[in-house]
Amino acid sequence: MIPYKLAARNGSNINTTIQISSQEGPCLIGEGSLTVIAGPCAVESEESILTNAFLVKEMGAHILRGGAFKPRTSPYSFPGLGVEGLKYLALAKKETGLPVVTEVMDVRDIDKVMEVADLLQVGSRNMQNFPLLQELSRLQVPIILKRGFAATVEEWLLAAEYIMSGGNHQVILCERGIRTFEASTRNTIDLGVVPLVKELCHLPIIVDPSHGTGKWQMVRPIAKAAVAAGADGIMIEIHHHPEEALSDGEQSLNPQNFARLMTEVGMIAKVEGKEFLRINPSPPMHSSLNAD
Amino acid sequence: MIPYKLAARNGSNINTTIQISSQEGPCLIGEGSLTVIAGPCAVESEESILTNAFLVKEMGAHILRGGAFKPRTSPYSFPGLGVEGLKYLALAKKETGLPVVTEVMDVRDIDKVMEVADLLQVGSRNMQNFPLLQELSRLQVPIILKRGFAATVEEWLLAAEYIMSGGNHQVILCERGIRTFEASTRNTIDLGVVPLVKELCHLPIIVDPSHGTGKWQMVRPIAKAAVAAGADGIMIEIHHHPEEALSDGEQSLNPQNFARLMTEVGMIAKVEGKEFLRINPSPPMHSSLNAD
Amino acid sequence: MIPYKLAARNGSNINTTIQISSQEGPCLIGEGSLTVIAGPCAVESEESILTNAFLVKEMGAHILRGGAFKPRTSPYSFPGLGVEGLKYLALAKKETGLPVVTEVMDVRDIDKVMEVADLLQVGSRNMQNFPLLQELSRLQVPIILKRGFAATVEEWLLAAEYIMSGGNHQVILCERGIRTFEASTRNTIDLGVVPLVKELCHLPIIVDPSHGTGKWQMVRPIAKAAVAAGADGIMIEIHHHPEEALSDGEQSLNPQNFARLMTEVGMIAKVEGKEFLRINPSPPMHSSLNAD
Amino acid sequence: MIPYKLAARNGSNINTTIQISSQEGPCLIGEGSLTVIAGPCAVESEESILTNAFLVKEMGAHILRGGAFKPRTSPYSFPGLGVEGLKYLALAKKETGLPVVTEVMDVRDIDKVMEVADLLQVGSRNMQNFPLLQELSRLQVPIILKRGFAATVEEWLLAAEYIMSGGNHQVILCERGIRTFEASTRNTIDLGVVPLVKELCHLPIIVDPSHGTGKWQMVRPIAKAAVAAGADGIMIEIHHHPEEALSDGEQSLNPQNFARLMTEVGMIAKVEGKEFLRINPSPPMHSSLNAD
Repeated sequence: MIPYKLAARNGSNINTTIQISSQEGPCLIGEGSLTVIAGPCAVESEESILTNAFLVKEMGAHILRGGAFKPRTSPYSFPGLGVEGLKYLALAKKETGLPVVTEVMDVRDIDKVMEVADLLQVGSRNMQNFPLLQELSRLQVPIILKRGFAATVEEWLLAAEYIMSGGNHQVILCERGIRTFEASTRNTIDLGVVPLVKELCHLPIIVDPSHGTGKWQMVRPIAKAAVAAGADGIMIEIHHHPEEALSDGEQSLNPQNFARLMTEVGMIAKVEGKEFLRINPSPPMHSSLNAD
Repeated sequence: MIPYKLAARNGSNINTTIQISSQEGPCLIGEGSLTVIAGPCAVESEESILTNAFLVKEMGAHILRGGAFKPRTSPYSFPGLGVEGLKYLALAKKETGLPVVTEVMDVRDIDKVMEVADLLQVGSRNMQNFPLLQELSRLQVPIILKRGFAATVEEWLLAAEYIMSGGNHQVILCERGIRTFEASTRNTIDLGVVPLVKELCHLPIIVDPSHGTGKWQMVRPIAKAAVAAGADGIMIEIHHHPEEALSDGEQSLNPQNFARLMTEVGMIAKVEGKEFLRINPSPPMHSSLNAD
Repeated sequence: MIPYKLAARNGSNINTTIQISSQEGPCLIGEGSLTVIAGPCAVESEESILTNAFLVKEMGAHILRGGAFKPRTSPYSFPGLGVEGLKYLALAKKETGLPVVTEVMDVRDIDKVMEVADLLQVGSRNMQNFPLLQELSRLQVPIILKRGFAATVEEWLLAAEYIMSGGNHQVILCERGIRTFEASTRNTIDLGVVPLVKELCHLPIIVDPSHGTGKWQMVRPIAKAAVAAGADGIMIEIHHHPEEALSDGEQSLNPQNFARLMTEVGMIAKVEGKEFLRINPSPPMHSSLNAD
Repeated sequence: MIPYKLAARNGSNINTTIQISSQEGPCLIGEGSLTVIAGPCAVESEESILTNAFLVKEMGAHILRGGAFKPRTSPYSFPGLGVEGLKYLALAKKETGLPVVTEVMDVRDIDKVMEVADLLQVGSRNMQNFPLLQELSRLQVPIILKRGFAATVEEWLLAAEYIMSGGNHQVILCERGIRTFEASTRNTIDLGVVPLVKELCHLPIIVDPSHGTGKWQMVRPIAKAAVAAGADGIMIEIHHHPEEALSDGEQSLNPQNFARLMTEVGMIAKVEGKEFLRINPSPPMHSSLNAD
C-alpha cells in the first residue's frame, strides 16, 4: 500500500498546479509551465540583493530566491542576515515586483518570514524536521520541499504528506542532489527522480542544479537536462560577482552565464512543449555582465 | 585547519568525562567507564515504562531511555505520547532512581523535557537542526548527539561544536548507523568511527546497535564489538514484550537477551579495562523473562 | 597532479572522435554527432536478434547491441548463448549492415568476439578487471568502457588510462548508473558526470538510461536529459516483446516507445546542434509495433 | 526464496570448517577457532617477504599473506612482482612452514599461483569476475572471497554460490570495508555483516581491518571488534618498516603494534570461547621491533 495517500497519483492524470500571485500577475508552477527561480545564495546586503533581483527580472526569471536564515555546517560560518535580510528581501520584492522565496529553519521564525515570502523553502537538512513541517501544514502558502541529501523518494513524499495532511496542499518538490560515494562533485544530482516522482505523485517537481552539482560550469547543462527530463522548474544560484559571494560562490552563475542558461533552457522548454513565459525579457544591462 | 576547535583533541590526552547525578550517586560517562543506556523505543503507557524501567535497573544498566516525542517518517505513525509520556518517564525515574534520557525535537519543548530528563537526546534527523543545537548550547545539561544517518564525521563534530560554542561542553556522541547501498539491514553500523573519533576528539562516544542494525539478533554481537572498538557506552532498545511494541519491536531485546547482553558486554569491558559498575545487579525476576 | 595523463584534457579543446566503419559508410562517435546504440539485452535466438536488429535499423539508430556473454549475479541465471550468440550477431550484422557492439568478460574470449564485433564493451563489473583492460589496450578497436557501479570518476578515467597506456586510444566512456542508498530505482543515473567528464577528459561519453534507471518508463526522459546534458550518445535496451525477454525486460523499450524516443531525442539533439544522422529512417513496420 | 542454495544456512546449525594443511599440522578456519592471516600488502623482495614471514610466525599468526599480482587503480602504480613474487612466497613458505594465501586476478595465472598457494584470494574488484569464479569452482582449494566494495550481502553470497555450484565448497568470506559517502577513512568497515552472514550462511567469515579502515591506528580496535562480533578470523597487513612499504604503508602495522594486536585479540578470543592456537608463540626478536 502506498503510504503517502494525499501525495500519491493514484491513477489520476491530474497534476497539481500552484499559483503564485505577483505584482505582474499570477505565475504558475506545474504542468505546462517552466518556472525559473533565481537569486543569490544569501541576502548579503541591501545593495547586493537589489542588484541581483533586478538581474533576475531582466533575464526573465519568475521568482527571486535569497537566504536570510542560512543553515551552515559550522557555527563559525556566516549564518545569514536574519531579520535584516528579510527586510532587504521585502525591498527587492517591492522594487522588482518579483515573488520571493526564502528558507525557514525555525518554527519561531515562520511569522516573520511569512510577512515577506510568497513561498517558503524547507531546506534539505530540515526535510524531516517534523515540528516545522507540521507548522507549515497549517498555512496556506506554497512550500518548496527540498529532498534531504540522503532521503529516499518514499521519505520525501512522506515529508510532503506531513504538510498536506495538515491541510496545506501547495507543495513543490525540489531535487537538489544526494550524497553518494562520489566526491568529485558536491552532491550527485539525481535526475531519475523527475520521471519517477511524476509517475508516483501529482505534485510539481523542480530541480536545483546549483546545489546538485556545486560547480557553476555544470549548472547550465544540468539545468537543461532537468527540463528535458520533465522538471516543472529550476532553481538557480546567481550572483553579480560570484567570486565575492559570502557563500556558494563556486556554484553561482555570473550574469553572462545566467543569460546563456535562460536562452538554452528556453529552447529545451519549447521542445518539451512547456510554456516559458519570460516575465520581462528585457535585454540585460551591459554594465552588469561579466565574462566568465 | 581543524574546523571544530572546541571538540578537537588538539594533541591532548585528556578526555571529557561527563557526570550524571542520580538518586543512587553519580554515574560517569567517559574514559574508564562503560555506560549502558537502555529502555523502550517509545514510552507507551505508565505500566509499560515502569515495567521496562525496573527491568533496566535489575539488569544493572545505568540510564533509562524512552521516547515521548518520536520523529516518525510518516505522519500517520504513532508520534509518541508527548507531554503525557514525559509524566510517565518522571514517574519511572522516581520509582527506580535511574537517570533518564529522552529526545527533544522542537525548541518549544525544551523546557518541558528539562523538567524530567537528566540528559537530552538530539536524534539523527536533527543533527543539523541548528536552531535546536543553539538552544541546547545555552543549557547546562548533557546532550547525546546522534550522528545523522548521512553525516560525515566532520559534520558530526561540527554539530557538537555548535553545542559547545554556545557554552555547553557536555556532549556525548552517539553512532547509530549510516545509510549505504546495503539494504539487508536497517542501517550500516560504522564502528570505525569509534577509534577515529577517539583520535580526533576528546568527547565520549557511545554506540546504538539497535538502530545501527535494526535486528535484535545482531544487537548483542554489535554491542560487544562496539565495546571492543573502544566505545564509552552503548544504548540499547529493550522491551518486556518486543512483539507487542508500538515501534521498533524487531530491534528490541527481550529480557532474556538483554540479560545475556549485559553479561557478555561486561566480559568485554573487563578485557578493555573499563569499569562496568552495574548499579543494582539483582537477578532479573523470572516472571519478566521470555525466551527468544 | 592529474593521474590519468593520456585521458586528461590538459587544457586542449580538441575532443577524440571515434570512427566506426560499417557497410553503409562510416559512423562517428564524438563531438558534433549523436550516436544511438540499441538492441536487446541478450542475444536470445537467431530469429529474435534479427527482428530486433531490423527494428534498430528501421528506427534509424546507428549501432546494434546484444549480449552473447552475460555477467549474471546468480550462477543459476541465463548466462547468454556464448559463441552461438556471436554467430547470430554476425548474421544480424550481415543482414542489416549495422556495426555491432557486444560485451567481453573473459580474456580468453577476445579473439572470438573480435571476429564479429566492431566495438567491444567492458561491463560495469569489469571496469577494474585489469588483465582484461591490458589485453584490450593492445587491440585497435573501439572500447565502450562502462563506469563501475561504485567507481569514482577518477577511477573510471584511470581505467580508460589502462586501455590508452597500452596503445589503444579509442575509448568511449559510458555512464550507466551508480549504486546509492536509493532503492526505488535499479541504479541512480549520474548525469552530472557528463559535463564533469567533458571538462576533465577529451574522450566521448555516452549514457545508458536503461541500466541507469531499470524502468522502461524512465528511459525516454533520461535519454533526452542525457543529450541535453551534453552526451555524445545513448545506449538503449529494446525488445520486440519486452514482456518475453530473458533478461532486463522491465527496462527494455517496445518498438512504439523506441520510435517515440528516437523522435524526441532527435529534437533535443537539434537544439544542442548535434548531427543526428538517422541511417535509414524508414517508417517502422506496423506489424512490429506494440502499444505500451 | 533464498537464491544462494548451497551457501544458505537453511535452518542448520552446522557450520563449514575449512582445514588448511601446513608443515606444522593442520590449521582450521571456522567455528571454534580464531585464525589470523598476516603479511605485507605486496611481496616486495626476497629479503622483505622472508623478514615479514618470520615475523608472522614469531607472533603466532597462522597464515602468511602477500600479493604477487596486485590490482592497482592506476596503470602507473607498482603492479606486484608477478611470477617472481610467487617464487619468493614459495621460499617464505618453505622457510617458515606457514601456509600461504595470495590473490589471483587472471584465469591464466591460476595454475602458477596454485603451485605456491594453500589458499587463493579473490579480491574485492573481482568478486563478480564470473569467469574467474567459475575456474576456481573446479579446484579443490580454499578460496578467500573478499566482498566487493559495493556488493550487497546477497550478491556476495551469490558469488560464493558461483564457486560452490561448480564443486568447490571451501569458501571463506572476507569483509574488507564498503564504499560510502564517508571519506575520512579509506572504506567503511561493515561489522554488522558478521552476525548477519552467520545467520544467513554456514560459511566462515573473516574481517580485514587493514583495508576496512585504511589507517593503522584503527586496525587494532577494529580487529578486536571483529572478533567480538563473531568473526572466525582476521586478515592483517603488517610490514617490518611500514614507512618504506611499496603499497598500503599507512594501513600496515609495524612489529610492535602487531604484537600488541595479537595479545589483545587473543583476550577477546578467549571471552568468545574461541580457540586461538598461536602456532609458534616465540617472543618477537627485539631487533625487528620498531616503536610507533
